[in-house]
Amino acid sequence: MASDKTDRRDFLKKGAAMAGAAALGATARSATGQLPGPEAQIRGTPELVAYGKRSRFVTSERIPHGGRPSPDSFGLDFHIATPLQDQVGLITPSSLHYIGTTRGSFVPDIDPDKHRLMIHGMVDNPLVFTMEELKRLPSVTRLHFIECAGNRANSRHTTVQETHGMTSCAEWTGVLLSTLLEEAGVQDGGDWIVAEGVEEVKGTSSIPMTKAMADCIVCYGMNGEPVRPQQGFPLRLIVPGGEGILNVKWLRRIKVVDQFYMTYNDYGHLRQDADDAALSLQIGPKSVITYPSGGQQLPGPGFYEVRGLAWSGGGRVSRVEVTTDGGATWFDADIRGEAHPHAHTAFSFNWTWDGSPRELQSRCIDELGSIQPTREQAIRYWDDKGGTNRVKGQDNSIQPWRIDADGGVHNAIA
Amino acid sequence: MASDKTDRRDFLKKGAAMAGAAALGATARSATGQLPGPEAQIRGTPELVAYGKRSRFVTSERIPHGGRPSPDSFGLDFHIATPLQDQVGLITPSSLHYIGTTRGSFVPDIDPDKHRLMIHGMVDNPLVFTMEELKRLPSVTRLHFIECAGNRANSRHTTVQETHGMTSCAEWTGVLLSTLLEEAGVQDGGDWIVAEGVEEVKGTSSIPMTKAMADCIVCYGMNGEPVRPQQGFPLRLIVPGGEGILNVKWLRRIKVVDQFYMTYNDYGHLRQDADDAALSLQIGPKSVITYPSGGQQLPGPGFYEVRGLAWSGGGRVSRVEVTTDGGATWFDADIRGEAHPHAHTAFSFNWTWDGSPRELQSRCIDELGSIQPTREQAIRYWDDKGGTNRVKGQDNSIQPWRIDADGGVHNAIA
Repeated sequence: MASDKTDRRDFLKKGAAMAGAAALGATARSATGQLPGPEAQIRGTPELVAYGKRSRFVTSERIPHGGRPSPDSFGLDFHIATPLQDQVGLITPSSLHYIGTTRGSFVPDIDPDKHRLMIHGMVDNPLVFTMEELKRLPSVTRLHFIECAGNRANSRHTTVQETHGMTSCAEWTGVLLSTLLEEAGVQDGGDWIVAEGVEEVKGTSSIPMTKAMADCIVCYGMNGEPVRPQQGFPLRLIVPGGEGILNVKWLRRIKVVDQFYMTYNDYGHLRQDADDAALSLQIGPKSVITYPSGGQQLPGPGFYEVRGLAWSGGGRVSRVEVTTDGGATWFDADIRGEAHPHAHTAFSFNWTWDGSPRELQSRCIDELGSIQPTREQAIRYWDDKGGTNRVKGQDNSIQPWRIDADGGVHNAIA
Repeated sequence: MASDKTDRRDFLKKGAAMAGAAALGATARSATGQLPGPEAQIRGTPELVAYGKRSRFVTSERIPHGGRPSPDSFGLDFHIATPLQDQVGLITPSSLHYIGTTRGSFVPDIDPDKHRLMIHGMVDNPLVFTMEELKRLPSVTRLHFIECAGNRANSRHTTVQETHGMTSCAEWTGVLLSTLLEEAGVQDGGDWIVAEGVEEVKGTSSIPMTKAMADCIVCYGMNGEPVRPQQGFPLRLIVPGGEGILNVKWLRRIKVVDQFYMTYNDYGHLRQDADDAALSLQIGPKSVITYPSGGQQLPGPGFYEVRGLAWSGGGRVSRVEVTTDGGATWFDADIRGEAHPHAHTAFSFNWTWDGSPRELQSRCIDELGSIQPTREQAIRYWDDKGGTNRVKGQDNSIQPWRIDADGGVHNAIA
């Protein structure tokens, strides 16, 4: 349906022509006179001067992932999904960033003045840093997504928060791990690191030295302020493009070692061969349409800016395609702003809905040329691998949203 | 002092050599054994699942600008400065974004379902939009700074929050104003717009049509969530690079008119000639070092990453220079990431302090080739103009920080 794609400058006229009414399907009206004022005034207080709040009319919130009813009912793991359906722009607000932890609903309450980061093991010069010392070192600021490998563990969920809410993107600031490792002096044979956080249960992650030296960041800043407690305050290891569990929170220790070490957080799918482990830890090329998405209701035919997010552990997103007819015809979506490596990349597609039943999908192509698979391809892939993770962990298949004639939007996976 | 500039890979060795001790001036130590755990655990609650909070150990906050003691004591205007000394990365957290308003300490409490935006005046098709209608239109997401023209009204303040805290940078999302104006159809002679917010006192801003069509954005999103009430929820007009007062909050009306209209918020320095008004409304090339900055205390000689922000109403920052000897020698600073047009641009400079008294300054050069002036140049400029705004409003002169031998950092303006 090539006629669906709508030129930017043409969207209102086209909407009018198709729907036989004004612009947005008869909802934009002619205007005269004065508009009403606000409901009331919010009085300034010392607390609101110091640190502002969102509007009481904005109620978007995170929810426990996988239908868990409350934080008190959690066992060992504790997953909270971000409201992707409400996302505007690229950055996930820190208060809404997804959480995955194996420690239950508690997070460490760390005094940064007492916190230390140790670099030791197979190094020439073991080092311990205070937070103030780390902040004096050369730093970088980069956009990076994090995603739980179990995102989309159940693809039959209703909303995009339920299907894809275990990923977020933030502006991270900190010291490159390579800076610290070079100063410590990695010894021959130090092919892996084990990164340890201040946690009682999930302790550590094994990461190949090649990845550690490439682009990992020891972060103290997130979205312009200190990393939040739920994200690892005061220090989090960011492993760009790697599975969420590698991004160790409450980081206190990095030990250089000679091999992969099996630790609590290895769920059996991580490869232990240094040569290809880095690759196996990558999140595949992935994308999802956040508007319109499951559970939403379109008011009627007319113009819509279809919006979504794409990302890949393979580096930059190079292209995103959108279909409105279930995959028969694909169009290039617009990439919004620059596509940063290992960052969510926002895309949009100008679309005029004619009111007939439709199926919207998006697919991501990354700079390696990898293409997000269809659901059928993903099932075949996991079947070939023995089926242990079949359409569960690491599922990067295309998400289809069905739009019914009444404007209701539903997950098209039966 | 060319030897001050420190190569990235060399900073710890150099620090050690100069100070005769380890890395950061004897503070990084050899490491063995285990590190202490957290103080305590933060228990998850439904509120913390829904919307996270910062650490209780993070106390950075905004302060009333110009020494006003409390929000209750404000008269007509109400200015709150952001804590630039604590800034990491590029984005100002929404809770810490500076505020300038002429309405006192109250902000409108607006129900977005009832809010409307009207486009009228000299147009062919007057239009009224609901929030939901605006969100269906083609949108953009861009980083932009906002700055109060009165930032630095008193340059003798102690800290960078006091001298420069009336500027912030956020990721803004919304509809280009040109999209709405083109749909409404601007009539011949419609050379200006008047943008009106839901406010009782400061009402409107006159903006040339050339600027309105160039890059202004009607924003509903800020840093990934709806614009905050203190920043104009549910709708703010962003006028990239323009004086803060043009960025109308709680936007409800845009009227296309034939001339500049004098309104409450014109303090007398805005030019009323359409041909050069746009230029006169621009913020000049500006920069400031945020670390080390006034009121901070350096622990001793050794390596420091000098960090700061640069911005310009003229477009992109093309270069930032830093001096550590009061302006005798200038070095190129590193631009961190991409320099976006009309956005704060973070810079850094690797520096090894030898412990002697120093004066740090930064200067910004924008893509137009404009260079941030010295204080002497700025004073001469305003004297030539009659002195009415002498080193007060629109002061973009260089900020010098003096570092004493004891490590104390002070505003070097006597």
